[in-house]
Amino acid sequence: MSKFSEWFHNILEEAEIIDTRYPVKGMHVWLPQGFKLRKHTLEIIGKVLDRDHEEVQFPLLIPEDELAKEGIHVKGFEDEVYWVTHGGLTKLNKKLALRPTSETAMYPLFNLWVRSHSDLPMKFYQTVNTFRYETRHTRPLIRVREITTFTEAHTVHADKGDAEKQVREAVKLYKSIFDSLAVPYVITTRPDWDKFPGADYTVAFDTLLPDGKTLQIGTVHNLGQTFARTFEITYETESGDHQYAYQTCYGLSDRVIASVIGVHGDETGLCLPPAVAPIQVVIVPVIFKEGKEEVLEFCRKTQETLQDGGLRVHLDDRDIRAGKKYYEWEMRGVPIRIEIGPRDIENGTFVVVPRNTKKKEFLDYDLEKIMATVQEKLDDISKEMLEKSWQTMKENINTVEGVDEAMAKLNKDKGIISFSWCGDTSCGKDLEEKLRVDLLGVQEDLEEEAECVNCSAPAKHIALLARTY
Amino acid sequence: MSKFSEWFHNILEEAEIIDTRYPVKGMHVWLPQGFKLRKHTLEIIGKVLDRDHEEVQFPLLIPEDELAKEGIHVKGFEDEVYWVTHGGLTKLNKKLALRPTSETAMYPLFNLWVRSHSDLPMKFYQTVNTFRYETRHTRPLIRVREITTFTEAHTVHADKGDAEKQVREAVKLYKSIFDSLAVPYVITTRPDWDKFPGADYTVAFDTLLPDGKTLQIGTVHNLGQTFARTFEITYETESGDHQYAYQTCYGLSDRVIASVIGVHGDETGLCLPPAVAPIQVVIVPVIFKEGKEEVLEFCRKTQETLQDGGLRVHLDDRDIRAGKKYYEWEMRGVPIRIEIGPRDIENGTFVVVPRNTKKKEFLDYDLEKIMATVQEKLDDISKEMLEKSWQTMKENINTVEGVDEAMAKLNKDKGIISFSWCGDTSCGKDLEEKLRVDLLGVQEDLEEEAECVNCSAPAKHIALLARTY
Repeated sequence: MSKFSEWFHNILEEAEIIDTRYPVKGMHVWLPQGFKLRKHTLEIIGKVLDRDHEEVQFPLLIPEDELAKEGIHVKGFEDEVYWVTHGGLTKLNKKLALRPTSETAMYPLFNLWVRSHSDLPMKFYQTVNTFRYETRHTRPLIRVREITTFTEAHTVHADKGDAEKQVREAVKLYKSIFDSLAVPYVITTRPDWDKFPGADYTVAFDTLLPDGKTLQIGTVHNLGQTFARTFEITYETESGDHQYAYQTCYGLSDRVIASVIGVHGDETGLCLPPAVAPIQVVIVPVIFKEGKEEVLEFCRKTQETLQDGGLRVHLDDRDIRAGKKYYEWEMRGVPIRIEIGPRDIENGTFVVVPRNTKKKEFLDYDLEKIMATVQEKLDDISKEMLEKSWQTMKENINTVEGVDEAMAKLNKDKGIISFSWCGDTSCGKDLEEKLRVDLLGVQEDLEEEAECVNCSAPAKHIALLARTY
Repeated sequence: MSKFSEWFHNILEEAEIIDTRYPVKGMHVWLPQGFKLRKHTLEIIGKVLDRDHEEVQFPLLIPEDELAKEGIHVKGFEDEVYWVTHGGLTKLNKKLALRPTSETAMYPLFNLWVRSHSDLPMKFYQTVNTFRYETRHTRPLIRVREITTFTEAHTVHADKGDAEKQVREAVKLYKSIFDSLAVPYVITTRPDWDKFPGADYTVAFDTLLPDGKTLQIGTVHNLGQTFARTFEITYETESGDHQYAYQTCYGLSDRVIASVIGVHGDETGLCLPPAVAPIQVVIVPVIFKEGKEEVLEFCRKTQETLQDGGLRVHLDDRDIRAGKKYYEWEMRGVPIRIEIGPRDIENGTFVVVPRNTKKKEFLDYDLEKIMATVQEKLDDISKEMLEKSWQTMKENINTVEGVDEAMAKLNKDKGIISFSWCGDTSCGKDLEEKLRVDLLGVQEDLEEEAECVNCSAPAKHIALLARTY
């Protein structure tokens, strides 16, 4: 897909996901279909986090002095924070920031909540809107000024080891979320110059979009004791001492939904994983003059049975050409289309067309078994979409031995470049500048000896780079 | 309950619903238990609205010129709108308001969405946070600066009659929501001086809190063509003309949750309707030294069976005194406590204690039937709570024949006063001032002849007044 950016913009409009005509730059409207896609995506995220996180909700507005408390943190955000300065016609005594993220909203309360070692670990999350005054080119779901769907988790731990463990645990949780969405990823530890402001280190998930650029879709931060020291988050140990806690935080945003749309879509339109599709099955009756009512009745019974089985099913009985219906539901990415006509009823068959393959299949119709048959098809589709998207991703990761090769690859194949790297900041920044790419981060430490592809010093890590959103 | 206000504040803290220590006045934190209560309440609201409304989500920030377009509307809100004036260190060209409500965010888009008579009616809703710079005394869930849970519906209609019908339909929807929550209400058409800014008229739901003051818990507005004219929302009729649309909007807020807490609570703490209780059944094992494992195993099996039946069940196997557990779960308002001890197992019985009556009941234990038994108990509780709350409400509505009698009633019994009223604005305002109350509105038109209790002119309506939150 060469013109991904245009495709993406068009499909958001045509499939009625987002209306971009709201009169503030970088702020958009979730349309009913988009809202449902968002809702089902949030259900998957919630299900995973609810296992051992408590859901909470903090206020949007952060007082200036709280936001400013953590020096490194505020430096990272001060250029892009929206400020509320007036209430009615009255100037506020203290400016209030629209949260760009919620560390400085939550941690003054964590200071009150954390008392004893027996309170720990604490794990919370919330799904809220956050705001960034983006000066770069905005793009719906990808670079916005109102992030409408920020799911941020915040945890507090008694010791360093437990916080480290939580980072690994969070990576595992995020893997399972992206697997449910059939979205492939690379995981790297971000270079120091690209970590979250205030974090010890940041682990990030990136996926690859069809234009060969990567999109950051999730981050996990080990905050160490930085915020605990700033906000005085201490606990009483078993022996009665007071000690600073350790913290982590991790977040997902609207970009998760962007990746679901971008990774699976094709020239025909959306192709949605069954787990999040607003409509999972559409039934299109094939109607002739004769026997119309019988076919409709048959379709209704089928719909009811599948709905009772827990599926989201739509019966499209509009009086328009079947071809127009096929076009519309394929464009909207409905995973399965079922067609039932008079001849099917006669023969005891029905037609299934999975969106991902678009290949017609003729199956035996048995009302008793249809739920199992369709569910199995949906499971197959999920599996196929997962495999295909991972295969595409892997085919687009190229290992290179030198900078020129990297440049050639980037110009020809796009995608992600894997290489041996010394780990030095100035070398990394030099590389970013030369290739006009971002160094995503490091994947693993090298065991055998190798040279840094850029500076020839001994290489320490396998690192990844790519053009990024 | 004489000191309701204190009780309310304390129970929010003790039952961990809300943390009021967030460092901005009128903005609070939803704690895990509160968040669950809020979530289940929203599920009930969503289920009712989803029947024929589409869920959407609009941006928080409204450009100054859009907010100002509807003159009457902006006048109603200009003193209490929060303004964003800066992005980072840059002054914005155009100030942005934090939505106080979303008419002026949505209707510029409705202008684009509404094209033809065949598009109508359109019915949308969203659940979002909204903001009011309240200068009065704030109170969690009741008078706040961040309304965290504003469910606002907006509909567009081709003609006046259809909009009128929608107002009645919305009243019906809200009735069914409040009935599910066992929250009683009076419904009135607000007097002209108290209607929504920009509406033709406002219908409101008020409930009665234990201190005898009423709380507005829902409003339905017929907007007529006011906003349609301002935002140029027109449609093409069947004959090809262009005509202004008619609109309604209606909303529910955090106050719905305040009413659930306030209406049912008692000296022991919360008493939550089963529909929204975060935990519907708590199982407390009665443990002695001997046979502990057997009792626990029995409790676990019971829990599993009830959970499989779809109930929210907690097994409290902490190693603390049973009395302490009873106290805690009663305070938190869990509708049913089940106690199971070794003697119960021997006798094939178990103990059920409904929170609303606190009366122990000894029932036969049968694992096959326990789900049905407990569900029936929960249904009884819902019914009893609904009946009791309505009875209390009705007992506190007093019909009076004169102003002195109204004053005496208000001083002695508090509650709601019902009276014959002429409908005249200056008479109504005079009455409000004399009695230091609010005229809630009119209930129905009088059929027989009567005199206005205040000015002795011919009375037109039955009206209600009360001290209000």
